[in-house]
Amino acid sequence: MTLRRLGGGLLGAVLLLTSLSSCTRRVPPVDDGPGPAPTPTATTTVYVAQRIRTLDPAKPQVQALAVKDGKVLATGTREEVLAAAGQDARVVDLGSATVVPGLTDAHGHLAGLGRGLVTVDLQGVDTKAEALERVSSAPSSAFQGEWLLGRGWDQNDWPEKTFPSRADLDARFPTRPVALSRVDGHALWVNGEALRRAGITRDTKDPAGGRILRGEGGEPTGILVDNAMGLIEAVLPPATDAQHAAQLTAALNHAAQVGLTGVHDAGMDLRTFRLLQRWDKAGTLKLRVYAMADGQTADRETYLKDGPHEGKMLTLRAVKLSLDGALGSRGAALHQDYSDEPGHRGLLLLSPEEYEARVRAFMAKGFQVCTHAIGDRANTVVLDVLSRAAEATGTRQSGRHRVEHAQIMRLEDIDRLGRSGFIASVQPTHATSDMPWAEARVGPERIRGAYAWQRLKASGAVLALGSDFPVERPNVLAGLYAARTRQDLRGLPEGGWYGEQRLSGQEALEGFTVGAAHASFAEARRGRLQPGMDADFVALSVDPVDGPVSELPGAEVRLTVVAGEEVHRAFQR
Amino acid sequence: MTLRRLGGGLLGAVLLLTSLSSCTRRVPPVDDGPGPAPTPTATTTVYVAQRIRTLDPAKPQVQALAVKDGKVLATGTREEVLAAAGQDARVVDLGSATVVPGLTDAHGHLAGLGRGLVTVDLQGVDTKAEALERVSSAPSSAFQGEWLLGRGWDQNDWPEKTFPSRADLDARFPTRPVALSRVDGHALWVNGEALRRAGITRDTKDPAGGRILRGEGGEPTGILVDNAMGLIEAVLPPATDAQHAAQLTAALNHAAQVGLTGVHDAGMDLRTFRLLQRWDKAGTLKLRVYAMADGQTADRETYLKDGPHEGKMLTLRAVKLSLDGALGSRGAALHQDYSDEPGHRGLLLLSPEEYEARVRAFMAKGFQVCTHAIGDRANTVVLDVLSRAAEATGTRQSGRHRVEHAQIMRLEDIDRLGRSGFIASVQPTHATSDMPWAEARVGPERIRGAYAWQRLKASGAVLALGSDFPVERPNVLAGLYAARTRQDLRGLPEGGWYGEQRLSGQEALEGFTVGAAHASFAEARRGRLQPGMDADFVALSVDPVDGPVSELPGAEVRLTVVAGEEVHRAFQR
Repeated sequence: MTLRRLGGGLLGAVLLLTSLSSCTRRVPPVDDGPGPAPTPTATTTVYVAQRIRTLDPAKPQVQALAVKDGKVLATGTREEVLAAAGQDARVVDLGSATVVPGLTDAHGHLAGLGRGLVTVDLQGVDTKAEALERVSSAPSSAFQGEWLLGRGWDQNDWPEKTFPSRADLDARFPTRPVALSRVDGHALWVNGEALRRAGITRDTKDPAGGRILRGEGGEPTGILVDNAMGLIEAVLPPATDAQHAAQLTAALNHAAQVGLTGVHDAGMDLRTFRLLQRWDKAGTLKLRVYAMADGQTADRETYLKDGPHEGKMLTLRAVKLSLDGALGSRGAALHQDYSDEPGHRGLLLLSPEEYEARVRAFMAKGFQVCTHAIGDRANTVVLDVLSRAAEATGTRQSGRHRVEHAQIMRLEDIDRLGRSGFIASVQPTHATSDMPWAEARVGPERIRGAYAWQRLKASGAVLALGSDFPVERPNVLAGLYAARTRQDLRGLPEGGWYGEQRLSGQEALEGFTVGAAHASFAEARRGRLQPGMDADFVALSVDPVDGPVSELPGAEVRLTVVAGEEVHRAFQR
Repeated sequence: MTLRRLGGGLLGAVLLLTSLSSCTRRVPPVDDGPGPAPTPTATTTVYVAQRIRTLDPAKPQVQALAVKDGKVLATGTREEVLAAAGQDARVVDLGSATVVPGLTDAHGHLAGLGRGLVTVDLQGVDTKAEALERVSSAPSSAFQGEWLLGRGWDQNDWPEKTFPSRADLDARFPTRPVALSRVDGHALWVNGEALRRAGITRDTKDPAGGRILRGEGGEPTGILVDNAMGLIEAVLPPATDAQHAAQLTAALNHAAQVGLTGVHDAGMDLRTFRLLQRWDKAGTLKLRVYAMADGQTADRETYLKDGPHEGKMLTLRAVKLSLDGALGSRGAALHQDYSDEPGHRGLLLLSPEEYEARVRAFMAKGFQVCTHAIGDRANTVVLDVLSRAAEATGTRQSGRHRVEHAQIMRLEDIDRLGRSGFIASVQPTHATSDMPWAEARVGPERIRGAYAWQRLKASGAVLALGSDFPVERPNVLAGLYAARTRQDLRGLPEGGWYGEQRLSGQEALEGFTVGAAHASFAEARRGRLQPGMDADFVALSVDPVDGPVSELPGAEVRLTVVAGEEVHRAFQR
């Protein structure tokens, strides 16, 4: 995962998440044991809606869809489909909703999303006393190891308007470490025990770009600003098994709520993979998870030894490697200096030789290689290495190797990406988050090859769209909006930021459906609604292709269906 | 000190420094004992130069200057001055040089500058072996505590072009911690002992915006990128007394070399103050140091109890408080959201109430109050509080209270600053360093009140100019260049960034001389070259007022004279 915001990180990123609603069903059990056996829909169900976009070129728009045994049985007019479904079919009328094929986020991080979701939510709390009250009554899922975590406080909402301190927390939590991030993710409120475990004392220096606020005698007050938060983050313990399961459950439920039927997890740790494997075997995993093995850590060796895995809902046949850092922190590796920092070009995190060795090892084992590359230099190295290694392993087309982010690219490299048959895995909301400052980083020339979706398409590359959650919100409707507009939520700038690179509504929808399916070797089973294909779809209150685009980010996800099962519904029946 | 760059900090900031040349004389002794007694120039010396800019309105340009007993004896034509000086006067012909009153950096950090200067310099080293050789033969001054520190390596200059690792260092330094920062300040190369002391293991999480590079088994390789450097910086021990003295000596010598005769130290720790006091008493302190007591740490209480101090070269009668962070890291406190980060407005580091309490306590003890304020909200709070407190303590005009940075201000607050008689202590090179991205942070409206030197002057405010070294280079000629051009060193953008806010050559020179003198209550003794005033001056190879501005940053400082003593000379006699 790329932590792209200054002072953000896991504790900060959670601020982006909306709170959980309560209508999601069939969650994996938190106790980590096998859940109930799967209950396939015994009968046929017919879904009727004002508009069903199938992405089937033969029948792009229909009114009804029959589902049986987790597959699409038929599509067509209400009459056609009812006839095909038989008399005892259950009929669900979705009214004015638009149904589209199941949306897949082609680049997210489930474990990170879950870690953020379970912490105590302090947003909108009016007094410090109320915040302390909420923290004191936190559920066990809000803990990571012994640490109690929270997010969202804002001292400006409190009468006194002054920063809280460790003393406020110490009275209630004398021995348990507590860390609560501010609403904007730029400060952390911790207690004395947290300071102790992080080794933060009056002698600790403020790290670069960070502040340890200090009171009388130079003692830390318990407020850590910006990069000083890293001193805490670095010592946060791993979650216990139960906490880990609770975090992952929260992430899977949240995905269903926002309209996702599948996620490509961009660098899964072995522990998360093992847990999902267990759930998948038990039939309690209800989201399609296409996992990229984490190729950065020691887990790599185990993944390489075990080779790809194909389960029911869980597939692991890709590996994620990272070549450089992010643009925001100027960690992206550029060919030439940053326009706003002369003398600095970012850093490659692996030497090209080391990267190539890893690529060849994974390709030889049958893995698809997915590489994080933000800067133009990183993208050049990826294309050089992938081309050579794919040729050597005979996986040039069959491998469907992916460039994750493909963010700043030389124009000739964009052409090369498409010509080579590689996939561009891009995140529309990264463009709209970065647009206020991206051009300052790279200047007016290089920006032409940045977030250049139409140029990537023109090169022949398949686009797989994602969000990079929890760095951005996992809200896929916001992703469709950003792809179509290249504007912020207020509709600025007019015409969109380098608006000629916008995607049409149809192209954006394809990126989150057939594009993502292709990028995970699943285009024969998913991404379109055709008889025989998986019954994965969502019903939305706004048509994402032709509906009013400004209503898209706030639209309602009325129903999420995966393999014929309703995993989320927001409407009253 | 404001650490304004991502991943910069003390280890990073040192990269900005040029290496020491060897012609500076009369350094304070490194062994921390009293040095030799001062040797005032017994005879009169007459300096002759092509142009001497006195800033004396009655005689703005002269050709000669006589010095006796540390004071200016006379200025005028060669003949006039020789006549006044008497027959046995020593005559120094400075040839084509331009002499100006001693330049004072009104905002710098001597201890920080010194810490950077003494580390092992690895810039331009061609092989890793050579880098290791240099580190192995480091002088004792390159250590801080037991830590051996260096800077400036670049693996791209080495044949293998791959990152070095802890193993390279461990072979030579099995038990001594070593930390070496990369040429761009964005990565740190450390050994195993450094990792151990910082508690960095395979279990340590990457902090937000930082990376701990990892090898087989997930073990840290010894390369820490961006914010991961903070884990090391936070545990760096304080310097020993001898190291502290060596660091400070390096800073004082460097100041003389770059043409500074005085520095306003913006937040001096008590230990540095005590050492300078000792040197001042012994007569070995040769730079005029106007110290602001550090009002952020526990040292505050001691300073407050002891009250102001007036020595020979060392004065302490100001206090430095900090209200907010920096613009680069979005720590500056704004009234409205950051233009490039909706929902975030930065943070006040002290509540207005706490700030006011400190201000009143120091004002009541006779201190000038100098407050770091970058964002428009911080500046509003400073003006609100200073106005009230100055009124209450009767120090509205006499107190000469200062706003340090005064960087982003509402236009009405700019007017208020000048009307209130407060001083604007601004840093020209901050504007030219920040110009690539500052407008992205605050947008086109607020930028009108940012780095707005002419607006500040028009309000009636005195401008005192500085550099904020070691955040920027201490090169005062670069400061004069930035003030006159608002351009980078390539001369871009044409006409200067918001060029109407540029200072003329005369105004820029005044900011580093009479402006700084006024801001330290010294305008009757320094800032101009008039009979009876202190003989502080510098001889430059380029006229900073009318000379070709593009030659200014690289111009030669031929001579630096403080109180009649030549503390640096670059020319052959």
